[in-house]
Amino acid sequence: MTNLPGIVVTGASGRMGQMLIRTIQNSDRARLVGAVERKGHDWVGRDVGEAMGGAAQGVIVTDEPLEAFAHAQAVIDFTAPAATLEFAALAAQARAVHVIGTTGMTTEDLERLKLAAHHAVIVRAGNMSLGVNLLVQLTKRVAAALDADYDIEVIEAHHNQKVDAPSGTALMLGEAAAQGRGVRLEDVSDRGRDGITGARKRGDIGFSAIRGGDIIGEHDVMFAAAGERIILRHVASDRSVFARGALKAALWGLDQHPGEYDMVDVLGL
Amino acid sequence: MTNLPGIVVTGASGRMGQMLIRTIQNSDRARLVGAVERKGHDWVGRDVGEAMGGAAQGVIVTDEPLEAFAHAQAVIDFTAPAATLEFAALAAQARAVHVIGTTGMTTEDLERLKLAAHHAVIVRAGNMSLGVNLLVQLTKRVAAALDADYDIEVIEAHHNQKVDAPSGTALMLGEAAAQGRGVRLEDVSDRGRDGITGARKRGDIGFSAIRGGDIIGEHDVMFAAAGERIILRHVASDRSVFARGALKAALWGLDQHPGEYDMVDVLGL
Amino acid sequence: MTNLPGIVVTGASGRMGQMLIRTIQNSDRARLVGAVERKGHDWVGRDVGEAMGGAAQGVIVTDEPLEAFAHAQAVIDFTAPAATLEFAALAAQARAVHVIGTTGMTTEDLERLKLAAHHAVIVRAGNMSLGVNLLVQLTKRVAAALDADYDIEVIEAHHNQKVDAPSGTALMLGEAAAQGRGVRLEDVSDRGRDGITGARKRGDIGFSAIRGGDIIGEHDVMFAAAGERIILRHVASDRSVFARGALKAALWGLDQHPGEYDMVDVLGL
Amino acid sequence: MTNLPGIVVTGASGRMGQMLIRTIQNSDRARLVGAVERKGHDWVGRDVGEAMGGAAQGVIVTDEPLEAFAHAQAVIDFTAPAATLEFAALAAQARAVHVIGTTGMTTEDLERLKLAAHHAVIVRAGNMSLGVNLLVQLTKRVAAALDADYDIEVIEAHHNQKVDAPSGTALMLGEAAAQGRGVRLEDVSDRGRDGITGARKRGDIGFSAIRGGDIIGEHDVMFAAAGERIILRHVASDRSVFARGALKAALWGLDQHPGEYDMVDVLGL
Repeated sequence: MTNLPGIVVTGASGRMGQMLIRTIQNSDRARLVGAVERKGHDWVGRDVGEAMGGAAQGVIVTDEPLEAFAHAQAVIDFTAPAATLEFAALAAQARAVHVIGTTGMTTEDLERLKLAAHHAVIVRAGNMSLGVNLLVQLTKRVAAALDADYDIEVIEAHHNQKVDAPSGTALMLGEAAAQGRGVRLEDVSDRGRDGITGARKRGDIGFSAIRGGDIIGEHDVMFAAAGERIILRHVASDRSVFARGALKAALWGLDQHPGEYDMVDVLGL
Repeated sequence: MTNLPGIVVTGASGRMGQMLIRTIQNSDRARLVGAVERKGHDWVGRDVGEAMGGAAQGVIVTDEPLEAFAHAQAVIDFTAPAATLEFAALAAQARAVHVIGTTGMTTEDLERLKLAAHHAVIVRAGNMSLGVNLLVQLTKRVAAALDADYDIEVIEAHHNQKVDAPSGTALMLGEAAAQGRGVRLEDVSDRGRDGITGARKRGDIGFSAIRGGDIIGEHDVMFAAAGERIILRHVASDRSVFARGALKAALWGLDQHPGEYDMVDVLGL
Repeated sequence: MTNLPGIVVTGASGRMGQMLIRTIQNSDRARLVGAVERKGHDWVGRDVGEAMGGAAQGVIVTDEPLEAFAHAQAVIDFTAPAATLEFAALAAQARAVHVIGTTGMTTEDLERLKLAAHHAVIVRAGNMSLGVNLLVQLTKRVAAALDADYDIEVIEAHHNQKVDAPSGTALMLGEAAAQGRGVRLEDVSDRGRDGITGARKRGDIGFSAIRGGDIIGEHDVMFAAAGERIILRHVASDRSVFARGALKAALWGLDQHPGEYDMVDVLGL
Repeated sequence: MTNLPGIVVTGASGRMGQMLIRTIQNSDRARLVGAVERKGHDWVGRDVGEAMGGAAQGVIVTDEPLEAFAHAQAVIDFTAPAATLEFAALAAQARAVHVIGTTGMTTEDLERLKLAAHHAVIVRAGNMSLGVNLLVQLTKRVAAALDADYDIEVIEAHHNQKVDAPSGTALMLGEAAAQGRGVRLEDVSDRGRDGITGARKRGDIGFSAIRGGDIIGEHDVMFAAAGERIILRHVASDRSVFARGALKAALWGLDQHPGEYDMVDVLGL
């Protein structure tokens, strides 16, 4: 077990941090070698397993990221932009892969990340789920392979507390379909169908948003022609898929040259 | 075979008339004994099988409905309101079951039908598909059995030439759900969801309309709560289901007392 | 809030007990007034909220069931047969509704329960999920309404650790379909279809078992004829549905005369 | 319209031949310029539109294929091996694209086709449906992108007259999944699951066969892991999809260098 790649998790006490730690613990392909929290956090100095309410794991939470990174092959980081920029510099210094799930980074932040990527492997993605990233790729390819005889519809279902429609992922899928077809989504988007709409316009990309119960997230991209339909479907049943995607990215990054990558590179599509 | 109930089809040359004739031919529970067309139609006097482009069937198309009805146990009639009212009187006179799929009848027309039903068995429905009628009943019952912890969504998919959304059948299902729950659909209907909608309102009934290819008609009624979903689904793959429903209604009607019935009675739910 | 019906949960420390307690806490239609554990359990004497690792709730875990029941309108009980029989006598004495999710009871146990039900309301079911019970009822009714032109298939999907196929619930659905149709399941069951099977035998009920990932449980009952299909579908996404069903049964039981009931009665189908 | 590519259909009177002719008539990207039947067929010398029971089209059915091919840019051919080999030589001579949907060709036949492909564009596929070919490609890619944490299941549904299970297309999808994963299907195939099966074996590819009604063909390839599922789905609702695929292949072939191609090339995946 001690030969397995060692991973550090930043933001260890957060919901995503804890999910990452559990995912690494359950993996037979990596081991947890560090857990980082900000200075002053009450987990600092405690065994991370105990802090999470379980058994001790022999990993003490630290507020010294560089020290932690020095013993690791990879860092997984779902924190905030400022912390992430700092971690990027330290991970590069420690020659550790830096997997970034942090959102809300500005264009300027991203420019600075690029610099760090000259000397280190960085994998960054807005959505770390393998499945959703794969679906985006497939959607683009299928849309490129089929002409407008195939009507494209994106259908998503989410829990009843979601406040926006369609979902961000549905729009991402719609963008991928539009790109595949060589059009701009804003020119062909058909949302909120209701009433006397007239016949469907050829080339449109339609969206439907279903809301109910506690559905975590389901997305269908349908390509429907006379006589046949292809449907690409993703069902998320547990938010742990983001943690699993991040771990896969970390392991993949071990064999890469310095540079900035995304989940599409990890999947090798 | 000659002991099987004899059926007459009116409007024999129409798309629905021909489908009814084929359905009866393929059934081992009924036989075709008459085919009616309006005076002057060029099928009158010809063998109906030959007129349809196939082999002779020994049934000559006639423009004398009463004569045809006199030898039949049931009449199936998807024509127009004026013709249907005339046929109702004649079917009653011939003591034949009258199955009516004709649409567009006024309140006055329906009053006149009621009179005919004093002396005859009439089965009438806007949609003769067993499946859809069954789905409407199930929807009402499930909506009555479950409280508003179960979010109700009606999702339908149709071909790309359909001009209205949601479909009439989707609205019928929504009505059934509202009735089951003891509310008015217009008070809880949520259609055309798009943009920043806020969280779903408890008790709402949502509608989504998917359009693409040549989908004949698919309807889902979803009841989604925390932890579970029930989905009642109907898929139509052939318009012959209307003919099959009509034939079932005719056979069922043979054992009934005079009166006006619908497909819910036929299904015995 | 103090006018809400008061509920006692037995076996409070168990996985199901804790889920029941959380479900009652989250409900605005009931309140928790007691939590019972067996003598000697280390939760006895502690606040149940704190014992569960959260905030205090003002309910102390007790090993005196009668005392707890005396202040309650209902008892929810997922324990073991011997305890359940004891609780049945005490609940009857306290005139509290007794909801029983305990499994593995013998015929003799059930006879003894019947006696208790002379003086008390008992609701007992092998599966407390509203959705599954509803699906069983619907399946029976639809199978009764449709003839053998509609091929019946039961399709289920479960996680990759499940060791038997088809699932018990799938078999229950198959039984319901067979009952609705007036046949014996063992005479028409078609399982494990593979190879040169020949055409489907009219009247058969087919089963398919899909296994993968961590699917909690999905069941489809399909009625497929020429031209249309009806599909009754249940998707479980959280094991809390059993707790919700039990609470609904408890509240429903408050208005009933003494007797033994099941979830079908609760649903009013 | 006269500048549209001209297509000849061989075996014009057959079910597939007529479907091809209707498909070309309905297309705005090609026109029918010839219809071939074997010597002595009673359609020879008649207008093909009239022979099909409709309006004249100005195309006379001929038994001289070379003459017909000489005025065409492409030939679509769903006939029999002997005829197809003859047509291949003639199409090469006429420098027309030869699209072949004929099945049952021997290895020797295929060798002879290869020779014709030195001088002509040949597109040949066992299944001309765009959708199914696309699904096969997608399945292979997704299986290659995901590891065995993702359980693969192939689920298919067909009409109640189908005599074999799983379907040939399901097995083709299973093969594609196995190839993508770098294993042999016969080593990992799990069919006809029934009884006490034990937990699912990691790496297995499972198959389920659903039978009912008149389902033309539905195929799902599911990749299920903890927390997420990807499903690639194809639904055939009309056998005309084979004709549409063939026409697409013909138009695509116009711009290719001589050689033998299949639908994967046409789709450009």
